[in-house]
Amino acid sequence: MPSEFKMVHRVEFADTDMAGMAHFSSYFRYMEATEHAFIRSIGFSVVMWEQFKVGWPRVHVSCDYTGPLRFEDEVEVQLLVREKKEKSLTYDFRFRRVKPEPAVVVARGAITTVCVSRDGTGIMKSVPIPEAVARKIEVSEGASK
Amino acid sequence: MPSEFKMVHRVEFADTDMAGMAHFSSYFRYMEATEHAFIRSIGFSVVMWEQFKVGWPRVHVSCDYTGPLRFEDEVEVQLLVREKKEKSLTYDFRFRRVKPEPAVVVARGAITTVCVSRDGTGIMKSVPIPEAVARKIEVSEGASK
Amino acid sequence: MPSEFKMVHRVEFADTDMAGMAHFSSYFRYMEATEHAFIRSIGFSVVMWEQFKVGWPRVHVSCDYTGPLRFEDEVEVQLLVREKKEKSLTYDFRFRRVKPEPAVVVARGAITTVCVSRDGTGIMKSVPIPEAVARKIEVSEGASK
Amino acid sequence: MPSEFKMVHRVEFADTDMAGMAHFSSYFRYMEATEHAFIRSIGFSVVMWEQFKVGWPRVHVSCDYTGPLRFEDEVEVQLLVREKKEKSLTYDFRFRRVKPEPAVVVARGAITTVCVSRDGTGIMKSVPIPEAVARKIEVSEGASK
Repeated sequence: MPSEFKMVHRVEFADTDMAGMAHFSSYFRYMEATEHAFIRSIGFSVVMWEQFKVGWPRVHVSCDYTGPLRFEDEVEVQLLVREKKEKSLTYDFRFRRVKPEPAVVVARGAITTVCVSRDGTGIMKSVPIPEAVARKIEVSEGASK
Repeated sequence: MPSEFKMVHRVEFADTDMAGMAHFSSYFRYMEATEHAFIRSIGFSVVMWEQFKVGWPRVHVSCDYTGPLRFEDEVEVQLLVREKKEKSLTYDFRFRRVKPEPAVVVARGAITTVCVSRDGTGIMKSVPIPEAVARKIEVSEGASK
Repeated sequence: MPSEFKMVHRVEFADTDMAGMAHFSSYFRYMEATEHAFIRSIGFSVVMWEQFKVGWPRVHVSCDYTGPLRFEDEVEVQLLVREKKEKSLTYDFRFRRVKPEPAVVVARGAITTVCVSRDGTGIMKSVPIPEAVARKIEVSEGASK
Repeated sequence: MPSEFKMVHRVEFADTDMAGMAHFSSYFRYMEATEHAFIRSIGFSVVMWEQFKVGWPRVHVSCDYTGPLRFEDEVEVQLLVREKKEKSLTYDFRFRRVKPEPAVVVARGAITTVCVSRDGTGIMKSVPIPEAVARKIEVSEGASK
């Protein structure tokens, strides 16, 4: 049962800033793209309003940076399911720059996302993760405790 | 009747790229923010789905760059209504860096946006600009012919 | 001695995503713009390579979201200096949506940024905050402990 | 001799806006990423400051939109070299949504970029394209006249 997923991203020019590195906010784009690819890998789209009437807003995100990413670097982002609750998921992300070599860990991040429905006025309320989705996701033994 | 509008933007760090200047795509953010402030200045929000059942996708945008913008520069973006058709609007934008001095023109841009409705399946169809909106907007004599 | 700073941001269209809210990464743009305005308010630019030969990469950032921000909402971002070490600064950020009313807290964030110099090969090394800068910044009593 | 290049991009969640489509500025990210992949395909990096002491600022960009791109759509961006001058390159871009099927053209764009050097004060001056680069690039017969 899937609990981990890897995706390689290339640092694009628009991701950089005048310090010559990937802007720190770019890492959240990489994390999110990896998360959504993970969801596709288990047979769903994160946009599941029509299918299940739920959405996935974030309640907590973080990132710790230990080394830079530069233009055209390739970074492997590993997603690990750290926590699966009735109504939320927490993912850990490990960033490993794989090109240029030698490979080196450059960041670690996390996203906690809540499964919500919306009433007619747009008010969101947390609800249980759809069973069909929940049973495809398993906590990773490698995630941080 | 309003045909022009000015708004000053500051170049933020996230707008820059590793060349040390505002990334060329940032200018479209400045144009759009100016356009939406113009719409507010005439008493509406560009998000008028609920009020008028119409949206405003873009059909053409362009920008010509004649000088750089750098971090913390202030740029005055002047919107001029170039064309008002039954179902579309074309805006010209003139970018004048006003800080640091001396002021200098650094770019010119344009956006053509179409008034559309959507049917039940999401298909968009161009429709006349709502009368209440159209009568508040006038073509600028200063716009490019 | 400055230890807090406030700045109001408007949610622009480009900040939103298809869920109809400000994308969660936009909050980091608001935080950073507020941080840089704070630095300007004490008489410096965060880009102080030429003046002091130092830069300010991030080592940790986070954000907790408690309510949505929508297009054209105005959000007051309050920066509080939580920690001032010899070589780093940690800021807390409190997001209060002030328009539409009633005002409501919608998020809290944090950024830890390190003062670094670069050697000839681009390798960064943490160094003491320039004295002229450090003496203008004070820890806020209101920041989280 | 290379005159065309294709690259498939997936519309990420952060690329969308509250209208439920890829924000119009996202297309410029796709164009630029494709351009830079083209430059890599001929053996160079667009960041050639160290190698050739030149950079590539944009002087003109445009995009015409004929259909929407939505989250998780895959769009094939075809670059065609339209013009190769002594000191500048103009690329045409054709956007074809290839997933979901049936494939359909959704946009056309263009970028004109100038080869520049910088003097000690940062002032840019257009200069001839490095010979090693120029001889690898050919005008496409399929580009728009």
